[in-house]
Amino acid sequence: MKNDRSTILLKSVKRLLRRDAIVHLRKIVYKTHGADLSELFRSLSIPQQHIVFNLIEDIEQKGILLSQLDENDFLGLSEGLEIDSFVEVLECMPSDDAADLIGRLPDGQAEILLEKMKNEESDEVEELLNYEDDSAGGIMVTDFIALKDDTTAKEAIISLQKEHMDVEMPFYLYVVDEYGNLMGVCSLRQLVVVPPETPLKEFMTTDVFSVTTDTDQEEVAKIVARYDILAVPVVDETNKLAGIVTVDDVIDIFRQEATEDILKMAGVGEEFVETQSVIKSTRIRLPWLFASCIGGVVAFIIIDYFEASLTKVAYLAAFIPVIMGMGGNIGTQSSTIVVRGLATGRFNVRDIWSVVSKEFLIGFILGLVYGTLIGTVAQFRYNTAAVAFSAGLAVLSSMSVAALIGSLVPMLFVRINIDPAVATGPFVTSSIDIISVFIYFSIVTKLLGI
Amino acid sequence: MKNDRSTILLKSVKRLLRRDAIVHLRKIVYKTHGADLSELFRSLSIPQQHIVFNLIEDIEQKGILLSQLDENDFLGLSEGLEIDSFVEVLECMPSDDAADLIGRLPDGQAEILLEKMKNEESDEVEELLNYEDDSAGGIMVTDFIALKDDTTAKEAIISLQKEHMDVEMPFYLYVVDEYGNLMGVCSLRQLVVVPPETPLKEFMTTDVFSVTTDTDQEEVAKIVARYDILAVPVVDETNKLAGIVTVDDVIDIFRQEATEDILKMAGVGEEFVETQSVIKSTRIRLPWLFASCIGGVVAFIIIDYFEASLTKVAYLAAFIPVIMGMGGNIGTQSSTIVVRGLATGRFNVRDIWSVVSKEFLIGFILGLVYGTLIGTVAQFRYNTAAVAFSAGLAVLSSMSVAALIGSLVPMLFVRINIDPAVATGPFVTSSIDIISVFIYFSIVTKLLGI
Repeated sequence: MKNDRSTILLKSVKRLLRRDAIVHLRKIVYKTHGADLSELFRSLSIPQQHIVFNLIEDIEQKGILLSQLDENDFLGLSEGLEIDSFVEVLECMPSDDAADLIGRLPDGQAEILLEKMKNEESDEVEELLNYEDDSAGGIMVTDFIALKDDTTAKEAIISLQKEHMDVEMPFYLYVVDEYGNLMGVCSLRQLVVVPPETPLKEFMTTDVFSVTTDTDQEEVAKIVARYDILAVPVVDETNKLAGIVTVDDVIDIFRQEATEDILKMAGVGEEFVETQSVIKSTRIRLPWLFASCIGGVVAFIIIDYFEASLTKVAYLAAFIPVIMGMGGNIGTQSSTIVVRGLATGRFNVRDIWSVVSKEFLIGFILGLVYGTLIGTVAQFRYNTAAVAFSAGLAVLSSMSVAALIGSLVPMLFVRINIDPAVATGPFVTSSIDIISVFIYFSIVTKLLGI
Repeated sequence: MKNDRSTILLKSVKRLLRRDAIVHLRKIVYKTHGADLSELFRSLSIPQQHIVFNLIEDIEQKGILLSQLDENDFLGLSEGLEIDSFVEVLECMPSDDAADLIGRLPDGQAEILLEKMKNEESDEVEELLNYEDDSAGGIMVTDFIALKDDTTAKEAIISLQKEHMDVEMPFYLYVVDEYGNLMGVCSLRQLVVVPPETPLKEFMTTDVFSVTTDTDQEEVAKIVARYDILAVPVVDETNKLAGIVTVDDVIDIFRQEATEDILKMAGVGEEFVETQSVIKSTRIRLPWLFASCIGGVVAFIIIDYFEASLTKVAYLAAFIPVIMGMGGNIGTQSSTIVVRGLATGRFNVRDIWSVVSKEFLIGFILGLVYGTLIGTVAQFRYNTAAVAFSAGLAVLSSMSVAALIGSLVPMLFVRINIDPAVATGPFVTSSIDIISVFIYFSIVTKLLGI
């Protein structure tokens, strides 16, 4: 349904652009949310994007559109933007989003923009640009409401009306001492339900979850999700309140981290580059395939080593795909479960032995099932018990070992602080290819005496 | 860091349980958030869980703990709970969470609980139980603030203080007409900044994003994320406001959907079952491996068919792993990109040909690179141009076709309304195994004339 709606929007806009029907276009643009416009922009040429962008009257709508564009679209569009109107949009955006956009621009252009912005705004943005992209400091907003602990509820409401009109999502009021250190938090809701003269310190919650500016964004997101809060305060090294991370950013973090993990496990980089050039995509995918290529070459060397046996009993080669395939697939199952289990907190590194031994047991049971099946196929085809038994045993061994490696490797990687998602794919897959082939030929040469 | 903290908590609680140090335990439990207790419970036996649960004094803390437990832990714990205290906890929980828990229980137990609950609460829960689990109706809360359009800001604040104390996250006030139909929305923030006598209709936003009770939860989550809102209203078939879905549930939906997609692509079911029994895990993983087994058996039949050629040139078997491996891996890359691209809205089914042709091109380029590499290895080993060329060409063909299939299949599945994540894994992997082997042997028999 959503897709239909966006397809209709795209078609209408393209038709109106062809006809140069500016009045109609302006009407459609006016009614469309910035987030929907950003999706539309993916399918427009850069000159078309400029026409549509210039028809937007609302500065906030422009800001939402810009901050939701894909990196490439944003860079393409921003090149042709008039500096003054660009600055105007940046000043109206939440400071974290503005810093995000400016951080993507070439240094020269970024400097010009920062110079043109009002001092107050550009200071905030420059401060944010100093933090790592994926730390709490890099994703926090510096517009928040901080009040002294002896402020009354009534005074707090007045300050909301007068001073804090630009705060993005004002659901919490943070209470600070004279040095700006975080003491507690009140909700906007509490503010309207207590008697107006009550000072904040009498009803604030002092047990506040907070993070520091260098906390990893994934950790921040987990805290917000775990305790069902709408924003988490960020303090600097002196415990001074520096900003807040809001729940809308947390959603983006989770989606981004899930995408990263999925892509890394498949060996296609960390970020979604498919909207970019063929050359860039190719370059990103090359290394992982190289790992798999090395695995294949080692398997080649192993089989080559057993060539004498193969010449005698050539049909043995026919079992290579099924043994490699079954091993590879159960290995992927085990490593996927462990990597996702670690990412979502279902598994803890301290449970390494219970997890690995369980995976091994599952691999063994499934190996028995499929070993029997493949053995039966072999017996049916060649009517030689030794061949059937060798094939079955090879499937069983390969699947058990693959489940073991698939679960053990990511756990060990986490212990030595290597990201399991990025390392597991190539490492596990190539090792299993090599081990499967080796196990198979060792078994057949022993059992068949060739 | 978080892991350290939870490990320390677990160790202390276990030590105190061993020593029967109830007073100390009660203190620790009192200071620990329900969400942290639920994690702790994963590592406690059921009798230990009961001891700790009974030490909790705060009913809300009990509710948070219960709603965050894994399904199995919850069922184990709930069996031994005293009915009256269980009912008390359920009554204090948000109605969507209560419905979730009751929905997991055996019918008999659920009925007893619903009967014992206050009518008002049990009606809400029973109503929610009628909706599909993964629809907006199944995840919405029915506690929300709905006021008539001529209510003044001041009256609205008074109603917040008196009537709506139990509303979970009161950031929006919904404005309805006399039939309960949704007309607009105000934020709590607006309420405190407008003059007290202003009626809601004068400052409410009338352009409200809403969903219907049968909207899929993933769609709901996307709307909340797209428009950066904290809650989305849910209307029934008569446009009457029935509930709201809040942002905390949206986070859970995204995490759950990402986990589902990851697990489905690896062929390990939809839900995280590894905390369950070995038998259950084995049963879930069996079918996907069966698809791969069928693929392996077909590859077996193909190689078997070419046995005569293999007997003459046995070393040809040595290239099977690398050709299968390279094809399989690039196929996984392509299908992962497409499945995730579709899930996150980066790709649209209407772009099918541009996506697929780009993937094919990337497959072709990477195939040239690795085909040349493997051809060189073959030339180096056997010093026969025809063999080297055959191996290289097989790698090139297999990788190009694999990229094509890997991107085309999920796109086609979406078109015919099959979940691409669940179908892509087994289907793509097995097809590529079969096709790679077939391409290879067709090439070598033709080119080497055997």
